[in-house]
Amino acid sequence: MKALVYGGPGNKSWTDVPDPRIQQPGDVIVKIDTTTICGTDLHILKGDVPAVEKGRILGHEGVGTIVETGPSVTGLNVNDRVIISCIKSCGHCANCKAGLYSHCLGGEGQEGTGWIFGHLIDGTQAEYVRVPYAENSLHLLPAGVSDEQAVMLSDILPTGFEIGVQYGRVKPGDTVAVVGAGPVGLAAITTAGLYGAATVVAIDLDANRLEKAKEFGATDTVLSGSRDWKEQVLALTGGQGVDVAIEAVGVPATFGMCTDIVRPGGSVANVGVHGKPVELHLENLWIQNISISMGLVNTNTTPMLLKLVAQGKIRAEKFATHHFGFDQFLDAYDTFSRAAETKALKVIITA
Amino acid sequence: MKALVYGGPGNKSWTDVPDPRIQQPGDVIVKIDTTTICGTDLHILKGDVPAVEKGRILGHEGVGTIVETGPSVTGLNVNDRVIISCIKSCGHCANCKAGLYSHCLGGEGQEGTGWIFGHLIDGTQAEYVRVPYAENSLHLLPAGVSDEQAVMLSDILPTGFEIGVQYGRVKPGDTVAVVGAGPVGLAAITTAGLYGAATVVAIDLDANRLEKAKEFGATDTVLSGSRDWKEQVLALTGGQGVDVAIEAVGVPATFGMCTDIVRPGGSVANVGVHGKPVELHLENLWIQNISISMGLVNTNTTPMLLKLVAQGKIRAEKFATHHFGFDQFLDAYDTFSRAAETKALKVIITA
Repeated sequence: MKALVYGGPGNKSWTDVPDPRIQQPGDVIVKIDTTTICGTDLHILKGDVPAVEKGRILGHEGVGTIVETGPSVTGLNVNDRVIISCIKSCGHCANCKAGLYSHCLGGEGQEGTGWIFGHLIDGTQAEYVRVPYAENSLHLLPAGVSDEQAVMLSDILPTGFEIGVQYGRVKPGDTVAVVGAGPVGLAAITTAGLYGAATVVAIDLDANRLEKAKEFGATDTVLSGSRDWKEQVLALTGGQGVDVAIEAVGVPATFGMCTDIVRPGGSVANVGVHGKPVELHLENLWIQNISISMGLVNTNTTPMLLKLVAQGKIRAEKFATHHFGFDQFLDAYDTFSRAAETKALKVIITA
Repeated sequence: MKALVYGGPGNKSWTDVPDPRIQQPGDVIVKIDTTTICGTDLHILKGDVPAVEKGRILGHEGVGTIVETGPSVTGLNVNDRVIISCIKSCGHCANCKAGLYSHCLGGEGQEGTGWIFGHLIDGTQAEYVRVPYAENSLHLLPAGVSDEQAVMLSDILPTGFEIGVQYGRVKPGDTVAVVGAGPVGLAAITTAGLYGAATVVAIDLDANRLEKAKEFGATDTVLSGSRDWKEQVLALTGGQGVDVAIEAVGVPATFGMCTDIVRPGGSVANVGVHGKPVELHLENLWIQNISISMGLVNTNTTPMLLKLVAQGKIRAEKFATHHFGFDQFLDAYDTFSRAAETKALKVIITA
């Protein structure tokens, strides 16, 4: 089959590789119909994730059709359409029982690591993929939900919702600021209302993304390049600060913006993938009764989010901005990696 | 009357000052029977809290007897024995209604500041003190609870419980590590069982304090000066890390110890008062699904904790190590400020 193969920092190719095979009784093989590219894939290509070895097939998002099932699989069948969750979970370990699929202690990859596709085992940017623990890691796709909608449920929608909105403990009437209006920030913006957020403020350097944010449900936007960005945010809260600040970029400056605008008693939910330490101003913050959360998505809200997509209450298709065939995979990477110019949110790649 | 008056950094005196008067209809005047000294008072004396002006009477903990009530006070009477909460709360503002007394928006001191005694208004290290918002800031003392027990409910017991145990979201079966076995750390240790902590690990540089910690309910102790302190803690958790790490010192090193030993999905509860920023290793922690909390006590669990003290389920009297009269106030400060030598936990000063 063909697959997008990592060749070490700066190198990738769309090339021939062996077909995947069933290895464990709970595995299934999925034929990929639709996949996409994540910012994390770009990090890997920069060499930021040294655990990824040369020869690894990248990708942790995908929608496809089951073509083979392992002998212990009873709840899934050949020809079922499925969403592949970016997190594998055995469903049986202490962490899975606590809903902490992100740190599944089951086998495959490395103990305590839920994210394995395109990281520790071969991923979804390929014609076929082997899915371990398939009955707990795949979601059956109902008729009426398109591949383009469904692929947003592999990662970005549950990540924005669980790590931004849920970890941030958004509650009715809250003012929620989202710093960074990329795909995951927009996913937080578009799901903040599920817990009753009244005001959702999108903050970004890019005016185009702020316009997008309004389409996804932001009630207010603030250009973070403006000198008085902080005063603009505080003015929306009567000077008190926001109830919840969601960080969706992954650099020290945007993390600091969040601790600067959160009110006493509020929450900072870090969603961004960070490569450097940040300075936490505990000398000011210790007395502020704030909480700071962070983490990798668990994907245990995927069934609920899928239902809302099927009901048209979450407009997942709006994340898709560019479309490619598998034979244009390198073009898709090029478009996605120049998102500021191309205005790409999610690029859709179909078989 | 006599009071302990701050004279600027390094200066204090037990001296004559005017008696306090009722200023607002909801005030009461309390004759102090028993008070104590907090580490925060030592910080003030070092000049670390510039908001405290020369001439301010220090102290935010105390037990006493009401000698005068303002015209709007109906639930309190002259001769009532009361605990003075270290936090004033109007009870009416949006923050008070949310239980966030620490950031009460009512008048007195400064809007949004619950801690005012010995900070923004005159405090409890005096023969008499004016208590604003008295009906929401005083707690009637039942017969059978001694002053020495009750004064631990002004600050240290609710601080250890609310900011350590509750903010740390301790739950049944948890392993809880407490870094720093001073009075507030011991308060967290002795209340961690209320939410079902199974293993409570005290970590301190001082072997004497670790012995004390066992008396307060620690199941295990680790000397933090030992080279393998971290391995000792992890060995208690099967290598996974602790569920909750409570920081009760207030320096960057002890904060870093907490983020080093917390398991994926666990909580770090900062209780310490910090004077410097800390380096937060988000490049490792972003994927660990931990939460970090911090804050000033709200004192809304004081009635519950008082009940448990009255029932003998919290042995509050064990915090009291040294006793002084008001005329020995400077000796009490000397003993408390040399706690490593004197083995002082809380010094009790009585009229």
